[in-house]
Amino acid sequence: MINSDTFQFLLAAKQAEIKVLQQLGANCELVSLVSELVHQLQRERGMSNLYLASGSALFGKERQAQLVAVTLQEQSLRQRLQQHYLHKSDARNSSRLLSSVSMALLAMDDLAALREQISLQKISTLASTQAFSRLIHSWQTVVSEAADIASDAEICRLLVVLQHLMRLKELAGQERAWGSIGFAKGDFSADLRERLSELDTAQRQTTEQLLQSATAELAQQWHAQEGSQGSKDLTQLRLMLQQFTDQNCTVPAIADIWYQLATERMDQMQLLQNEITGQLQRQAASKLIEAKQQLDQYQHKLNLPTQHDKTLIHSVLFDPAMPGLYGDASIEQHRLEPAGFSFLYQLLNEQASHINRIQAELAQVKTKAEEHRVQQRAKMWLMQHQNITEPAAHKLLQQQAMSQNCTMTDIARQLLQTN
Amino acid sequence: MINSDTFQFLLAAKQAEIKVLQQLGANCELVSLVSELVHQLQRERGMSNLYLASGSALFGKERQAQLVAVTLQEQSLRQRLQQHYLHKSDARNSSRLLSSVSMALLAMDDLAALREQISLQKISTLASTQAFSRLIHSWQTVVSEAADIASDAEICRLLVVLQHLMRLKELAGQERAWGSIGFAKGDFSADLRERLSELDTAQRQTTEQLLQSATAELAQQWHAQEGSQGSKDLTQLRLMLQQFTDQNCTVPAIADIWYQLATERMDQMQLLQNEITGQLQRQAASKLIEAKQQLDQYQHKLNLPTQHDKTLIHSVLFDPAMPGLYGDASIEQHRLEPAGFSFLYQLLNEQASHINRIQAELAQVKTKAEEHRVQQRAKMWLMQHQNITEPAAHKLLQQQAMSQNCTMTDIARQLLQTN
Repeated sequence: MINSDTFQFLLAAKQAEIKVLQQLGANCELVSLVSELVHQLQRERGMSNLYLASGSALFGKERQAQLVAVTLQEQSLRQRLQQHYLHKSDARNSSRLLSSVSMALLAMDDLAALREQISLQKISTLASTQAFSRLIHSWQTVVSEAADIASDAEICRLLVVLQHLMRLKELAGQERAWGSIGFAKGDFSADLRERLSELDTAQRQTTEQLLQSATAELAQQWHAQEGSQGSKDLTQLRLMLQQFTDQNCTVPAIADIWYQLATERMDQMQLLQNEITGQLQRQAASKLIEAKQQLDQYQHKLNLPTQHDKTLIHSVLFDPAMPGLYGDASIEQHRLEPAGFSFLYQLLNEQASHINRIQAELAQVKTKAEEHRVQQRAKMWLMQHQNITEPAAHKLLQQQAMSQNCTMTDIARQLLQTN
Repeated sequence: MINSDTFQFLLAAKQAEIKVLQQLGANCELVSLVSELVHQLQRERGMSNLYLASGSALFGKERQAQLVAVTLQEQSLRQRLQQHYLHKSDARNSSRLLSSVSMALLAMDDLAALREQISLQKISTLASTQAFSRLIHSWQTVVSEAADIASDAEICRLLVVLQHLMRLKELAGQERAWGSIGFAKGDFSADLRERLSELDTAQRQTTEQLLQSATAELAQQWHAQEGSQGSKDLTQLRLMLQQFTDQNCTVPAIADIWYQLATERMDQMQLLQNEITGQLQRQAASKLIEAKQQLDQYQHKLNLPTQHDKTLIHSVLFDPAMPGLYGDASIEQHRLEPAGFSFLYQLLNEQASHINRIQAELAQVKTKAEEHRVQQRAKMWLMQHQNITEPAAHKLLQQQAMSQNCTMTDIARQLLQTN
């Protein structure tokens, strides 16, 4: 005798899973659009620097064209945002994600005024670079939030990879900007060289994190890209910049090459990002289709008239595999004839182990991401309280971990707990 | 120049938080009803045992009255379930919670058949106890799932306390059942005494966990309750049972006292549970009111016409506190006059730190709960693979932790990772 509520709740559980997957799909699409917008903003930052540094002589046209490209990308992002997050009554919006979106939108609202200051040469290249970097950071936060709230292991892993790749590309973008500022001033001061060296180190560290979470295929693509002639030439240029003394004068031709090579590398990285955002959207779509098929199957099975007769009572209450009595392993079981379970009980068991599997996979990915986050938070604390840079903070954690023979996460946790 | 999207997303973020709190409130109400249903089922289990053991001579009337009490409680639970989880289009149902609900409902569907077997004396007291215990366990799983998915630290903590208390009460219920079986048979075999001793140990362990997560106030109530004359008398009886040899004959009068004292203790525990479920519902309601008030405040601020004029541009892009450029701590900042932030930026910062605080608090509670879960999983593994009981598995973990000078959670993690 099976109550119809039981069916309804099994179906509702599946429907809840489907709604979560629909939201996950929308978040994956959002992240793809954010990745592209950040790419365009990074281009605008670079061109704005060259425009500012040349006293409006260079890159005027290119910059105007780039403003249009950013605006177009912004429009399609805003449109999607409205469709998916504001005008859907059953959207399972995350307060965290939307809060980060509104912060990024607020930053975007200030872009017009920033552009005006640039056009009028009323802002330094440094201040402009800072402003663009904050804007880009606000969009990166949206991607981290999306990764944090992702409810599927594979998609969460892809989002973490994307997060690392976006961070890496942003470090490359800042390296390009600092290099351009140096060339424009004709002065690579010790401070500037130190900064470029730190960005190089940070890129190595982020690459390590990227490769830890990336699939073998993606890692291969990454290595192929970093092994290209352009990347090698860029490495040569980096070494050259580090040789410059304070008095060195630089050749404008090298400035062009620097900008072009750095830009080429960033474009390559963007292709990799597109690869990942494509995978994200395909994964989200296929998980959704799978869940919908399961729902159809459930409904089909529940509608089969003969199935009800075959139903055996007492399936749950007399299933030895079902926990209940404490220390029950050795006790003789009450058996029902004929042995077997009702189909509904089977479905429920399938659904329960499906959920458990998803949870376990997700927990594993989240633990890794959480470890990364703990390290980042510990570094931030060190930066603020010991007044040191991020690379120095990273090194400090690393050294402590080595001397105490434990992981950097252990050290980071200790630090955060005791402070 | 602030785009109206930015407002909309700030409001949508708050609305998302409100929807999550509404669902949390529904889950708290569900858990309260489950706690009461389990209490009634435990009473039915006890009476059914006495009815079976006496060959239908005793507790016939009491049992019939109890069936009605269970049915009434079941009806109000089912009604609430339908209202909150099936007939609300905007419900943010959790697939995990609903899946556990459907499993528990399926178990409930079998209760009628179990009762029939009991009425006809076609089932042993042991098999009946097993069946009731599985049914109760399936409802306890609903409470654990609710705790797992709770998005508020204080409510999550209360749910964890409730979980421990329900487990403790169930162990007490099983102790009552085994004692009753022993008295009915007039035989406390070594096996039965071992079982009672294990349940005693398990109750001590669970009490430890309960007191670790409970507030000082609740801990005090618990100690007061365990210090009552009834509880002391029960402890005396426990010691007496352990003295019985296999040949001992027991006196029926003691059986009555055992049942009454154990029942009294369980009723006291239920009062504590009611206290907690009351707190849960009040907490959920007050968090919801708070969030709604914040939304009202936001809307009020956004509607103030003068505020728009005071808005300062570039707030995000030129805020030194906003991360962006790598290693940016020492760089001179581009300042805007007059210094200050737009009210919307303030609201967003408030909202972001509100979310961060909630997340951090929740993470702390979840970490504790996760440690408990890891320990439980490791025990399960040991029970299955070394064919030992739960108390033995607990002891094993404890001994290893002591000998390796680390926590039981560390040992449990190692075990799960290497197996």
